[in-house]
Amino acid sequence: MLNTRITELLGIQYPIVQGGMVWNSGAKLAAAVSETGGLGLIGAGSMDPATLRYHIQQARRLTRRPFGVNLPLLYRHADENLKVIIEERVPIVFTSAGNPKRTTPLLKDAGTTVFHVTATPQLAQKCEQAGVDGVVAEGFEAGGHNGRDELTTLVLVPAVISAVSIPVLAAGGIATGAQMAAALALGADGVQVGTRFAATQEASGHESFKQALVQAKVVDSFLTIKKGVPVRLLDNRFRRMVMEAEASGAPRTDIMEMLGSGRERLGMFEGDLDNGELEAGQVVGLIDDIPPVRDVMHAFVAGFRQAVARLNGQLESAEKSGKK
Amino acid sequence: MLNTRITELLGIQYPIVQGGMVWNSGAKLAAAVSETGGLGLIGAGSMDPATLRYHIQQARRLTRRPFGVNLPLLYRHADENLKVIIEERVPIVFTSAGNPKRTTPLLKDAGTTVFHVTATPQLAQKCEQAGVDGVVAEGFEAGGHNGRDELTTLVLVPAVISAVSIPVLAAGGIATGAQMAAALALGADGVQVGTRFAATQEASGHESFKQALVQAKVVDSFLTIKKGVPVRLLDNRFRRMVMEAEASGAPRTDIMEMLGSGRERLGMFEGDLDNGELEAGQVVGLIDDIPPVRDVMHAFVAGFRQAVARLNGQLESAEKSGKK
Repeated sequence: MLNTRITELLGIQYPIVQGGMVWNSGAKLAAAVSETGGLGLIGAGSMDPATLRYHIQQARRLTRRPFGVNLPLLYRHADENLKVIIEERVPIVFTSAGNPKRTTPLLKDAGTTVFHVTATPQLAQKCEQAGVDGVVAEGFEAGGHNGRDELTTLVLVPAVISAVSIPVLAAGGIATGAQMAAALALGADGVQVGTRFAATQEASGHESFKQALVQAKVVDSFLTIKKGVPVRLLDNRFRRMVMEAEASGAPRTDIMEMLGSGRERLGMFEGDLDNGELEAGQVVGLIDDIPPVRDVMHAFVAGFRQAVARLNGQLESAEKSGKK
Repeated sequence: MLNTRITELLGIQYPIVQGGMVWNSGAKLAAAVSETGGLGLIGAGSMDPATLRYHIQQARRLTRRPFGVNLPLLYRHADENLKVIIEERVPIVFTSAGNPKRTTPLLKDAGTTVFHVTATPQLAQKCEQAGVDGVVAEGFEAGGHNGRDELTTLVLVPAVISAVSIPVLAAGGIATGAQMAAALALGADGVQVGTRFAATQEASGHESFKQALVQAKVVDSFLTIKKGVPVRLLDNRFRRMVMEAEASGAPRTDIMEMLGSGRERLGMFEGDLDNGELEAGQVVGLIDDIPPVRDVMHAFVAGFRQAVARLNGQLESAEKSGKK
């Protein structure tokens, strides 16, 4: 339906990558996205090596189409998970949260297609030098962990496209086909979508967390701990506790400990909406249902076509009325 | 060249409004934008009533096409300037920084077309209830004064479009035709552009300020004083002084005083890049020249057409290759 450098490179139908999300994107979600023509990513950030291996093998059972793994490089288990990824011959890996210089050659030697997530044009250039096949330009509006420079997707994407010659995926602020059309109008070769896929039937998050995503408005996500490890969260008791600790001058190590993976699991996987960490992008306010992945993909494609038709109509209407 | 609800409503050729910018947008800039097919706005925020009247009369001499005035409602002289605008029968007014409830009926009674700038869907609804003809949805990436909710243009615009039925202009993060295509793909009826027009030959800012805009990168603008009166600035000695005052717990009135219009004049109009206030959006990093307005308008239109052609090509290429 839609050809870009990304669909060619990854062997997919639609230039839509489902972002790896801790506790939300296991084999079931990734395989569903790949089966319906996008690229699904297993989120390794919340998995120990045995769990990751299980999900990779499970995804292979669920789909024969390409899928990948998202590997946050600063999480614990990163090195062991890298080994699992190579042993299991995962065809595509998206690394994030760290420096791609060491891991990219290891993955490329294993025949893997490698993308890295970046929040600045400067890091995008370093990724290209490190030999990645493409980058994800992720803006300030994205959920979860985020950059410190606060560049929004609308500005970051063209800046990254100017800085590198490899394919660029836009991430942050994309939950609809109109937003995908906006990203491709900027010159992106595709999109990476997180929060919209977290609120699907196949996502592995807790039902209460999915309901919280449906309820939240656009003004309900906040980039938190901006000076430390910025992360975009829904507001709740846990977030207020972290903010109070930060405001009272708590050491960074204490705050990091509060944000440990136990809180992510508690909020998003176990559904404790008060005491857990609830990651979501600003687009959370545009999401009001929990459909199957298939419906999300169809809505993306239909919305994209509508947006392009609208743009064409604006040009044609002007030509008919005699304007130049 | 491009028909939307905005071009019809405002009687212009291109859906491009030049944002009112203190010390940067006098009659010369506004008239140049209107002459080349967009809508120019005189920035009343830095003008006393006599100066504003002069600029309105001057713009009438320079163009017979529609132009307007941007009136920030919380600036001093706002009430006197409102009187001047009505006396001079300015056809179009964009109000901002304040509540449109009181001023909109006064302007509508005088036959004026009224827009108000908003940073949330909630305020957009209040604007519609107040009777405005349209709203400007201005995102976190925009230069100068900004909202507290930090919604980016890519998320804010669809949220505002869902919230109201009147025309919506997208603002913040728009300096190129590709970015305009992105905004229109989201469903916006047009764009409001600030920083790109500040770096033109016709803008009234100091040559040194224009050069600073050309030099700055995307990571060089910062939303400052987020808890008080958020304003996006280039970093310099003045900004660091304000930040230190804020960090040391200075009263809000002291900080407001530091940000008084004297500093805006000093930085942008007198060219003191160290001690003055330098307002700019994140797009400042995408700007590398100081052309005449005519060239900016042509680049917008050409870039828009290219972006739409790219989107059409991606659809057609897929159809040829037999994908559905």
